[in-house]
Amino acid sequence: MFQDALTDAQSRVQAALNEAMRPLDGVIADAMRYTCTGGKRLRAFLVMEGARLHDVSPEVADQAAAAIEMIHAYSLVHDDLPCMDNDDLRRGVPTVHIQWDEATAVLTGDALQTLAFELLSNMDAYAEVRLALISSMAKAAGAQGMVLGQVLDIAAETAETPLTLKQITRLQAGKTGALIEWSGQAGAILAEADPAPLRQYAQALGLAFQIADDILDIEGCAEKAGKRLQKDADAGKATFVSLLGMEGAKARANELVVQACDALSPYGDAADNLKAAARFVVDRDT
Amino acid sequence: MFQDALTDAQSRVQAALNEAMRPLDGVIADAMRYTCTGGKRLRAFLVMEGARLHDVSPEVADQAAAAIEMIHAYSLVHDDLPCMDNDDLRRGVPTVHIQWDEATAVLTGDALQTLAFELLSNMDAYAEVRLALISSMAKAAGAQGMVLGQVLDIAAETAETPLTLKQITRLQAGKTGALIEWSGQAGAILAEADPAPLRQYAQALGLAFQIADDILDIEGCAEKAGKRLQKDADAGKATFVSLLGMEGAKARANELVVQACDALSPYGDAADNLKAAARFVVDRDT
Repeated sequence: MFQDALTDAQSRVQAALNEAMRPLDGVIADAMRYTCTGGKRLRAFLVMEGARLHDVSPEVADQAAAAIEMIHAYSLVHDDLPCMDNDDLRRGVPTVHIQWDEATAVLTGDALQTLAFELLSNMDAYAEVRLALISSMAKAAGAQGMVLGQVLDIAAETAETPLTLKQITRLQAGKTGALIEWSGQAGAILAEADPAPLRQYAQALGLAFQIADDILDIEGCAEKAGKRLQKDADAGKATFVSLLGMEGAKARANELVVQACDALSPYGDAADNLKAAARFVVDRDT
Repeated sequence: MFQDALTDAQSRVQAALNEAMRPLDGVIADAMRYTCTGGKRLRAFLVMEGARLHDVSPEVADQAAAAIEMIHAYSLVHDDLPCMDNDDLRRGVPTVHIQWDEATAVLTGDALQTLAFELLSNMDAYAEVRLALISSMAKAAGAQGMVLGQVLDIAAETAETPLTLKQITRLQAGKTGALIEWSGQAGAILAEADPAPLRQYAQALGLAFQIADDILDIEGCAEKAGKRLQKDADAGKATFVSLLGMEGAKARANELVVQACDALSPYGDAADNLKAAARFVVDRDT
């Protein structure tokens, strides 16, 4: 049932992304479409499930889901650049600066971010709701959210001493946590309901996701993952695994799954898909 | 009087930019502030004068002006990158990737774009007005506006034949025209008034601005301009000067100034500052 919901989210968000990019043509549009294909679509799934719990219409949820997947995609394209993580492979295919060139990658990321805000500004929801989504998405993506996480990540590479658990948790809260948190809450924001339970859920989920990523970086299969692995370990960077040990990291991830599920108690059985998602995040093999 | 208004616009938008960036710290915040210092502030001036013509409060206009200057600054930081225009100097000081590094420049541009949308989403105006500003700013900045202009500009560098006048006009309409047009109209959008006269004014102004840039690229002083000149001529790229000749380009720029001023006739003498701005754009020496 969770897998069905995830598959459904994947096809729904792809349709919304295609629709949003339909008027565009040229090389940047090609690269935007290329970048917005594939992936787990975890963020879209969170938006859609949160919206379903609050009886928000799927058509509206799909717009918000497409917007956050655009922000996520933009961050990956820029993060893969030679001056950042310098990755050649993403989701099993060449990264944008390899498939095209660096200038195209910079502009593709730029245009995806712009389109995400345009999409939210024109979606079918109350004006105040759209503004709340825009304002919170900007906060999550900006210099105190995702971009801060990127900066801390880059700084960690040249730091003289490895990061502490507190520092790496802060880095993660920005780099991957902020967009996941936004995605979790979006359904409640759309319904003008209290976002606190979904926020707590998404915060625990986001941290579990990053710990699982660090575990996969050691134990995963590069072919399945579709990207280079063991980068952090090879670079001597601190990870949740290096700080907690493999068993400790797994135990912490499992604790966070329990915490995430507990936060959903106000929703009862209706939140079963989100609970399964928390389990999925730590059990996935890519 | 125009110079006073421009100086006033410069200090007001700087204050609004400082205020918007006040909560931020760290290296990206430093680079954002660095990038948002100096410049002619033509876009801010256009927003403020358009707003004044429609009795919009200066405090509100300043927010919109700061937002468009952030978008402009983000575009410059990314445009200066080695993989794009590869410029070391901007406004007389080292570009961000020289002063810091490329990763910082990418992230600084990214965060400036995000903050521009955040600023508009939270400004003191009706929700529908804020959304209209966000939607139109995204359109101006995105894959069919400014980014399209950048792409056409990059493509022109490797094109086998120089661009035609029609192609270079389309390039300009995206690369510099779209943000200038948005800036011109913003005051009318803020007042929920007909933006057509200000749009026509800004379209003519934007084109005149680019023609003047091409003239300055030949006749200007690099020291005053604070950037490298004669790049386009050296690269064998078509410019308005190469296509129209120096005299033809000057004549066309002057025609556009007249057209811009004519478009302002509904506003009478109240638009004298904007008329002077059109003259300034073609007469400036930097």
